Amino acid sequence: MVNNKLTLADAFGQAAYIVGGHGSRKVKVLQEALEQVDGETFSDHYGNGSIIDEFQQEMADVLGKESAVFFPSGTMAQQIALRIWCDRAGIKRVAYHPLSHLEIHEEDGLKELHQIESILLGKADRLITLSDVKAIKEKYACLLLELPQREIGGQLPAYEELEAISTYCREQGIKLHLDGARLFEITPYYGKTPAEICSLFDSVYISFYKGIGGIAGAILAGDTDIMQESKVWKRRHGGDLIGLYPYILSSKYYYNERVGKMGHYYEQAKELASLFNACHGIRTIPEIPVSNMFHIHFALAASEVEPLLVQMAQQFDIAITSYLNKTGGNSCSFEMSTGDRYDTVPQEKLRDALTWLDGELQNR
Amino acid sequence: MVNNKLTLADAFGQAAYIVGGHGSRKVKVLQEALEQVDGETFSDHYGNGSIIDEFQQEMADVLGKESAVFFPSGTMAQQIALRIWCDRAGIKRVAYHPLSHLEIHEEDGLKELHQIESILLGKADRLITLSDVKAIKEKYACLLLELPQREIGGQLPAYEELEAISTYCREQGIKLHLDGARLFEITPYYGKTPAEICSLFDSVYISFYKGIGGIAGAILAGDTDIMQESKVWKRRHGGDLIGLYPYILSSKYYYNERVGKMGHYYEQAKELASLFNACHGIRTIPEIPVSNMFHIHFALAASEVEPLLVQMAQQFDIAITSYLNKTGGNSCSFEMSTGDRYDTVPQEKLRDALTWLDGELQNR
Repeated sequence: MVNNKLTLADAFGQAAYIVGGHGSRKVKVLQEALEQVDGETFSDHYGNGSIIDEFQQEMADVLGKESAVFFPSGTMAQQIALRIWCDRAGIKRVAYHPLSHLEIHEEDGLKELHQIESILLGKADRLITLSDVKAIKEKYACLLLELPQREIGGQLPAYEELEAISTYCREQGIKLHLDGARLFEITPYYGKTPAEICSLFDSVYISFYKGIGGIAGAILAGDTDIMQESKVWKRRHGGDLIGLYPYILSSKYYYNERVGKMGHYYEQAKELASLFNACHGIRTIPEIPVSNMFHIHFALAASEVEPLLVQMAQQFDIAITSYLNKTGGNSCSFEMSTGDRYDTVPQEKLRDALTWLDGELQNR
Repeated sequence: MVNNKLTLADAFGQAAYIVGGHGSRKVKVLQEALEQVDGETFSDHYGNGSIIDEFQQEMADVLGKESAVFFPSGTMAQQIALRIWCDRAGIKRVAYHPLSHLEIHEEDGLKELHQIESILLGKADRLITLSDVKAIKEKYACLLLELPQREIGGQLPAYEELEAISTYCREQGIKLHLDGARLFEITPYYGKTPAEICSLFDSVYISFYKGIGGIAGAILAGDTDIMQESKVWKRRHGGDLIGLYPYILSSKYYYNERVGKMGHYYEQAKELASLFNACHGIRTIPEIPVSNMFHIHFALAASEVEPLLVQMAQQFDIAITSYLNKTGGNSCSFEMSTGDRYDTVPQEKLRDALTWLDGELQNR
């Protein structure tokens, strides 16, 4: 029964099949992660104890770094990494993409808490290039690169470009920090291990609730002296909790569950993007995904797209998004990340739904 | 079998009966809290969602404040409260006890992240008095009072003194902030509700892993405009996690389990302190506890006390502490907080053990 008064978010919530993600963020995600854990296991205690030490060491090894520290959030971990690099250089300035998480999602924490200025490199709608890096005349302590660049659909530079930027930074004494919130997700495209990619960087942050699908939590990795200093800042930020184990245990559990599936998610994303690109007035960025994520752009106003997606969800029981971002008077977009749910969607139903959507879009 | 090579921490870990606390900090604490929760319950999402909203509202009501915000830690919550008061006053200076948590346990986060100076009020070994407050000539934005003052055994001012300090601060335009890490624990002694005590303060922090026995987490409460501003700072600090529910659910669970038992814990503490004070060379601070906590001081070097406590643990299967703080060449101390475990200790065994300890101490 079609009810066109339904919001897109409601239609999304009611559809039997959701195309992206691993599943809803519900308490059972934590319950499942804890099912296998011996209740007699001791909590970590203000950053110490085997439950945190062992996971930190495991992640240091995976990332090919001397040392790693578990943080409640990437916001905290990354500000701290940049602060340490600035203190060492004696320069309170860093460079990153105009749509970096630090610039648009953190209420200017880097500036307000650390008095660190940012140089916005390149343009908002494209990747940072070696030429952008070379063009900066001002002195700065650290360059942050986000791989993939999430806000432009999860694009990636060619690996050779990345290597050239890394070499240039080392020559210039500029520290290179990786915002690797989706690091595991890009390993299939680059055909590199996490450690190989991280070897280009002086410090690295990874997240456990994107492709890994945990609850929250982050790792910062690098040389031991930097990591020791990061623990002091973690306490200052209020992140050195008496027990971080709910996040550590769930990060570990879902890391083990999903890190081996990143190639599969990547293949899903390429397949799904090609289905969207076959629709009238839809294009994906990147056209061919380089990880499990991409953005889907409609050449039509959100107010016209929304009822179509509501109808599609009701008619085919397939939901592709709960929201639309207006990107202009006559365009809108949303983000897609493939994951465990994709394989539960009947392929024929999905193709029927997108064929129907294509037809509707042609009539606009 | 007595093994005198055992460390105090090991002897503590092996004893059948531990006198203080609620129990070991183990993963089962979280598992138990989650057992009753419907797995289909949605996570909070960056500070929003009913799971966080409802608990925040419940705590605002308990504390008699307009609004409350859940934080991962008190370190984060309190720095932020003081920062907001300083920004409003245009004065980057606050006052607190020389042994305040902010001064000795936070790696100077307040100074390093917020550039806020501290005035240390009164003396380290006693409570802040109204005279101390009146004696400050410098301008400052906020006075932080910790109730009870943990580092001196959990002492409390007379309620009338507290009221007088509150009145004075209001007259002078100084904001009064409560470090209420152990607020629920002091309600039986004062014979006041949390809301009555909090009415003397402009902002209040409470903790969920002291007397409440949760895993981690804190609430900051006050007027709605202050709380809204605190959310911005929470994001800047990296504490606005995509999901704080592991701490929220466990805080809620153990709050409901234990908030009604604070009077009982207080009675236990008074009884236990009197047993210690009956021993030669032992005194407690306060002599008569005013909450569930107190400090136990030996007039003997830690190196002499430690083997006695190891032996006591092995001979009577009763452990009273896992550590000793050296407080001078010939003295040492440790902290005691009574809780659920106290009632599991056979009273006769405890009295026998302390009688034996008294005898041993008399021979030194």
